[in-house]
Amino acid sequence: MSEILVVGSLAYDSIQTPSGKVDRALGGSANYFSLASSLFAPVRVVGVVGEDYQSQDIELLKSRKVDTSGMSVVKGKTFHWEGAYEGDMNEAITKKTELNVFEHFDPTLPEHYRDSKFVFLANISPDLQLKVLNQCHNPLFIGMDTMNFWITSKLADLQQVLKKVDVVLINEGEAMMLTGAKNAIEAAKKVIALGPKALVIKRGEYGFVMYTQDQGFFILPAFPIDKVIDPTGAGDTFAGGFFGHLASLGRKPLVGDLKEACIRGSILASFTIQDFGVKGLAKVDMGALEMRTIQYHKVISI
Amino acid sequence: MSEILVVGSLAYDSIQTPSGKVDRALGGSANYFSLASSLFAPVRVVGVVGEDYQSQDIELLKSRKVDTSGMSVVKGKTFHWEGAYEGDMNEAITKKTELNVFEHFDPTLPEHYRDSKFVFLANISPDLQLKVLNQCHNPLFIGMDTMNFWITSKLADLQQVLKKVDVVLINEGEAMMLTGAKNAIEAAKKVIALGPKALVIKRGEYGFVMYTQDQGFFILPAFPIDKVIDPTGAGDTFAGGFFGHLASLGRKPLVGDLKEACIRGSILASFTIQDFGVKGLAKVDMGALEMRTIQYHKVISI
Repeated sequence: MSEILVVGSLAYDSIQTPSGKVDRALGGSANYFSLASSLFAPVRVVGVVGEDYQSQDIELLKSRKVDTSGMSVVKGKTFHWEGAYEGDMNEAITKKTELNVFEHFDPTLPEHYRDSKFVFLANISPDLQLKVLNQCHNPLFIGMDTMNFWITSKLADLQQVLKKVDVVLINEGEAMMLTGAKNAIEAAKKVIALGPKALVIKRGEYGFVMYTQDQGFFILPAFPIDKVIDPTGAGDTFAGGFFGHLASLGRKPLVGDLKEACIRGSILASFTIQDFGVKGLAKVDMGALEMRTIQYHKVISI
Repeated sequence: MSEILVVGSLAYDSIQTPSGKVDRALGGSANYFSLASSLFAPVRVVGVVGEDYQSQDIELLKSRKVDTSGMSVVKGKTFHWEGAYEGDMNEAITKKTELNVFEHFDPTLPEHYRDSKFVFLANISPDLQLKVLNQCHNPLFIGMDTMNFWITSKLADLQQVLKKVDVVLINEGEAMMLTGAKNAIEAAKKVIALGPKALVIKRGEYGFVMYTQDQGFFILPAFPIDKVIDPTGAGDTFAGGFFGHLASLGRKPLVGDLKEACIRGSILASFTIQDFGVKGLAKVDMGALEMRTIQYHKVISI
């Protein structure tokens, strides 16, 4: 078993969906990722929050044995995102983004974080992703996420990060925007040409597409959920389950490991979308995950 | 091996996609269905065309041993559909629908058609679907397609047909419209409550969802295609491959047979979308289908 380092946002989200709304619920990519990955392996989180951040929200991670010594609390307010889902549950409409303390985030890793073997760079500015990577001593396996905003505003930095990572986990729209491709299949080969050895395209309710240099495509559907309450964090949960599984093996991942990791991530994400914010995910234990994994194999087996 | 009866449209389509355009190319649900299903089993087609219908287009079906004695040629012009795909290749934008001779189509089955064991009612008016069913003596397995237009304009007739069929094959938007559900998963159970024993929801580039009373969900992705030329007819090709496989077995289908049938249909559809109109499909033989089926199993295997 190896340790996972994650850098990303720690946030409060105000979310409206056809099922209702929540105000300033716990969110942010690093929270979703940590809650998911800590089911499998020790996790170290790097991020910044404001003075308004609730101690219970730090305690939630600590109760999962997540190392929060790389979280800094600074003067000001925590990153706040406000979004809504209308009709298409696969895409959020951003109503407001208040960066607050996140605007001047300058990640510094505690000394004992630097030998982490599995490193995940969640969706933050690519120059910060590079800063984190430069502080890591000898990572075994590096993954990243990004978003449309960085693809348009910081493409050169983003291209640098892409050259340094083993796997990219992005959604379908981002993959097409990054490559100019017209669909996920065309995009897959073009992303690999930018540097990473593997690509995972998250397709929301439709599942995922993995593409590796060695073995080509691996594509499966999502676990069927008839009532989606709030899709926020599904992608970060996927990444957390994916990395958690790989770190639990503690070896340089083989393609077969990546396939299992996709399934773990995909199934964990199906819990996230069944409640608002991190509530659905926070309740999951290995028993619930195993049960749903058995059901999933039935759904896809011929 | 059993015979398949199909009733549906025989048409000329004018189609524009990002890859180009064709004018009055051979199309219509019964043509796509027949070309696909005749790879597996004998097919009997019922439909109507106008005086402008080219003899080579009848010959194409005959070359596949399709029985065309139920095709009537009447005074007037053949059904003509004009559509375009822009951006979203999963949904056509209809520019023009000229029913022409199709407007007064009143299907009468030749006597020797009436004992067909497998019956597929492609996307035509539900009252005509009922008329065809009433002329069949003792079908073993009945399937149907429909579309948004009939769901809004002829719901009562449609509900009658739904009660009489074994399987419904429709696309995701149609399934949601028919049931008021917000996604394919929720829609599946609600369609089954309307009568049919099995439902297949076609998801375009994302594959399919099958739901059966007995075994619940069976969900798989589509075969990965990086360049989609023209998606027209993919759904009818799916249905043709699906029915062809079942008829080739010649028994009352088991759930396992339906699963294999979905895969056959899905893979055949991947050939259709690689060229305009029926051109991609018309070239496929069993060898090409088997080759792609082997590749497909690699893509979905863990």
